[in-house]
Amino acid sequence: MAQKPSIPKGTRDFSPAEMLRRNYIFDTIRKIFSLYGYLPIETPAMENLSTLLGKYGEEGDRLIFRILNSGNFLADVSPSALSAADTSAVTRHISEKGLRYDLTVPFARYVVQHRDEITFPFRRYQIQPVWRADKPQRGRYREFFQCDVDVIGSDSLLNEDELVRITDRIFGELGINIIIKINNRKILAGIAEIAGAGERLTDITVAIDKIEKIGREGVRQELAAKGIAPGVIARLEPIIDLSGSTEQKLAVLKKAMAESASGMQGIREMEELTGYLAVEPVKATVELDLSLARGLNYYTGTIIEVSAADLPFSSICGGGRYDDLTGIFGMPGVSGVGVSFGADRIYDVMMQLNLLPEQTGSSTEVLVINFGSAELPALMKVAGELREAGIATELYPDPAKLRKQFAYADSCMIPLVVIAGSNELAAGQATVKNMKTGEQTAVPFHELTSFIRRLKTS
Amino acid sequence: MAQKPSIPKGTRDFSPAEMLRRNYIFDTIRKIFSLYGYLPIETPAMENLSTLLGKYGEEGDRLIFRILNSGNFLADVSPSALSAADTSAVTRHISEKGLRYDLTVPFARYVVQHRDEITFPFRRYQIQPVWRADKPQRGRYREFFQCDVDVIGSDSLLNEDELVRITDRIFGELGINIIIKINNRKILAGIAEIAGAGERLTDITVAIDKIEKIGREGVRQELAAKGIAPGVIARLEPIIDLSGSTEQKLAVLKKAMAESASGMQGIREMEELTGYLAVEPVKATVELDLSLARGLNYYTGTIIEVSAADLPFSSICGGGRYDDLTGIFGMPGVSGVGVSFGADRIYDVMMQLNLLPEQTGSSTEVLVINFGSAELPALMKVAGELREAGIATELYPDPAKLRKQFAYADSCMIPLVVIAGSNELAAGQATVKNMKTGEQTAVPFHELTSFIRRLKTS
Repeated sequence: MAQKPSIPKGTRDFSPAEMLRRNYIFDTIRKIFSLYGYLPIETPAMENLSTLLGKYGEEGDRLIFRILNSGNFLADVSPSALSAADTSAVTRHISEKGLRYDLTVPFARYVVQHRDEITFPFRRYQIQPVWRADKPQRGRYREFFQCDVDVIGSDSLLNEDELVRITDRIFGELGINIIIKINNRKILAGIAEIAGAGERLTDITVAIDKIEKIGREGVRQELAAKGIAPGVIARLEPIIDLSGSTEQKLAVLKKAMAESASGMQGIREMEELTGYLAVEPVKATVELDLSLARGLNYYTGTIIEVSAADLPFSSICGGGRYDDLTGIFGMPGVSGVGVSFGADRIYDVMMQLNLLPEQTGSSTEVLVINFGSAELPALMKVAGELREAGIATELYPDPAKLRKQFAYADSCMIPLVVIAGSNELAAGQATVKNMKTGEQTAVPFHELTSFIRRLKTS
Repeated sequence: MAQKPSIPKGTRDFSPAEMLRRNYIFDTIRKIFSLYGYLPIETPAMENLSTLLGKYGEEGDRLIFRILNSGNFLADVSPSALSAADTSAVTRHISEKGLRYDLTVPFARYVVQHRDEITFPFRRYQIQPVWRADKPQRGRYREFFQCDVDVIGSDSLLNEDELVRITDRIFGELGINIIIKINNRKILAGIAEIAGAGERLTDITVAIDKIEKIGREGVRQELAAKGIAPGVIARLEPIIDLSGSTEQKLAVLKKAMAESASGMQGIREMEELTGYLAVEPVKATVELDLSLARGLNYYTGTIIEVSAADLPFSSICGGGRYDDLTGIFGMPGVSGVGVSFGADRIYDVMMQLNLLPEQTGSSTEVLVINFGSAELPALMKVAGELREAGIATELYPDPAKLRKQFAYADSCMIPLVVIAGSNELAAGQATVKNMKTGEQTAVPFHELTSFIRRLKTS
């Protein structure tokens, strides 16, 4: 006997029940993206390593799945590298392609490669799996799905407003209460600038980030422990003390940062975005959070992070503005902004919060019982008519015992069973059994379709 | 300057316009699969090589894309294999995973791995890309999409009937005229048996396959040239001479094959299937074709092949029954039947026959012109209301020149533009421009949504 087969660590099969729930999430996301005028693109699973390498830092390069060249790939490798078993020297020669690590770099590559066919501003979304050779653990997979939405070729902060609204709308439809935190890279740069400690930006933001946990005095101590000079800490006081609404925070920052051109620009951007968001209310809590400091090596303006309000540590979406994404591929000066929805995290959060629609094992609505060859032609016609009316219908393929056929409907959670044996056929009416309530109704064959349609909509 | 980026040979980017057309094909296929009660599953892009290897023949093994192990993968390779640059010995040690080559083997693996969670008969469909390191050429890609639909765990020929109907329905909806050829592996075995030349099955079917090109005498000559004995050719005469309807062919075969148990079983199966297909007519031409001999190394009963009637050499779908698909993974005796739709071939055929819906560059229905900060709040509300009504709407993000904004709508093929500058806002009505006809209509703001809805449905 062959041993029981398995799949690679960190990858998953999706059963029909999981697929139906996942598709509910993907369909909701896709629908809202389209409603705001974003268009789908797809890129290949494999990219040239020259496209991928050097874009994700050293750690990222290590986590890219590489594809072995076809044919006699060792022929071109230097004998010395081989005898030395020099993995990194050999790798360069035997692999030219890697699996997509995210959707951002392939998008940048796409925009540059197809720049002559694209009308800017280009609004695209992309929903595809990505692969990372990360250590698999709970909630972290080696194959997982990203849903990215970006607009490229427009500086307008209306785009940021729109992305916040898209996020608000998607999570509203999914029933997840969210907190949207926003920040601006230019404000962070301004803080470092007025503190006279530009190179200490990370230490400063990490310390400020802990204010809710350790209090203001704790933040001051942490800054001191990190070696930030007392004079700098003094200049940071208004920021450490920052509280209140986004408007109140911005008013304080404006005073504290009057000297920093970059900081003031960041504040103006935040004010403009806040103004747009005030035009029509969003459902989510949106707040300025100076401690939000993700993606500092590529975001140049607005930074956005979305977490589930009802669960701790549950970032489910994030993004920001990048002023030079396509520069790495030789097309500088094109500004873009986007957010990425983590489909697997969203799925996990919805399962935890019990937000997914009642679990079904099937999208089939009706099972027609198979009574054998005498009744079969009539039963095939019944099933055919139901399908003609758009009702998802199965005719059980074998004339198995009734008990077995009902057990199948039960196990697959098919809600209705149509029973039409010789008696029913002679009487001109089928029995429709509601598998949930057990209720049985005699329905003339010519009314079957409309009867079942009514049940669907009620 | 970086050089212009590119993607690996044989792979493709899909632009929004291509995605919209491709999704039309996928959505149609998915809709019909669901209507017949099939449920979606997905499997990982990567499978263990132990799952993939040895399933597709030697040539297939060579065409599997292998993934390099992570970390210092050369450490475990024997120094002698390395110094000899022995590619095949080294490969075994540095790669444990490969990319999915088709959807059939992962499906068999899935069924065996999840047998305890599955209710049989298991009706599943799967629409995912597969990867083959084939030489890229026109119409042949290294990443392409398969749409497989199978039922496993039922011997009933009703399943074959259903798959033929699904195929008929899908291509009917797509507008492709098709010819469905069916054959049965057992009839082919019977022919070889009565000819007393079981091991010559391929030579015999290949020769018979050419009857339309080279005529009956040509087939006889070809059989002789292949070394088939004159006595065998004489016994094959009724089959070489076979013509007429499926019923007529079956009648002749029945006489010719009375001695072969396998052949008679194949004929009974064909008769049963033909009987089912006669219960309700299908749109396509369905015909018995003895020369259809695909997949002889795994199909054990019915064989199905579908081609576009209006193009030569255009197989777009095929499948058959396999009695022991899961046997390779240690779960013998489970019969299944399925067909696979080649999405890329279908796309190419539809493009060639001009069958795809009018090409659009966008799914956006309305562009709202951006007049700048004074009008912006009102315009944001207009866009918001349209979206609330389910109308896909963009608000141009920058207050660019009108000409530029109209050029954008034109280039993206957005059908309607809403113009609401200060005059329109003061007058309480917007101008709606139909970009196709150029017609402009003044519409009060409170009627805008219903006006545009009416345009959509007319």
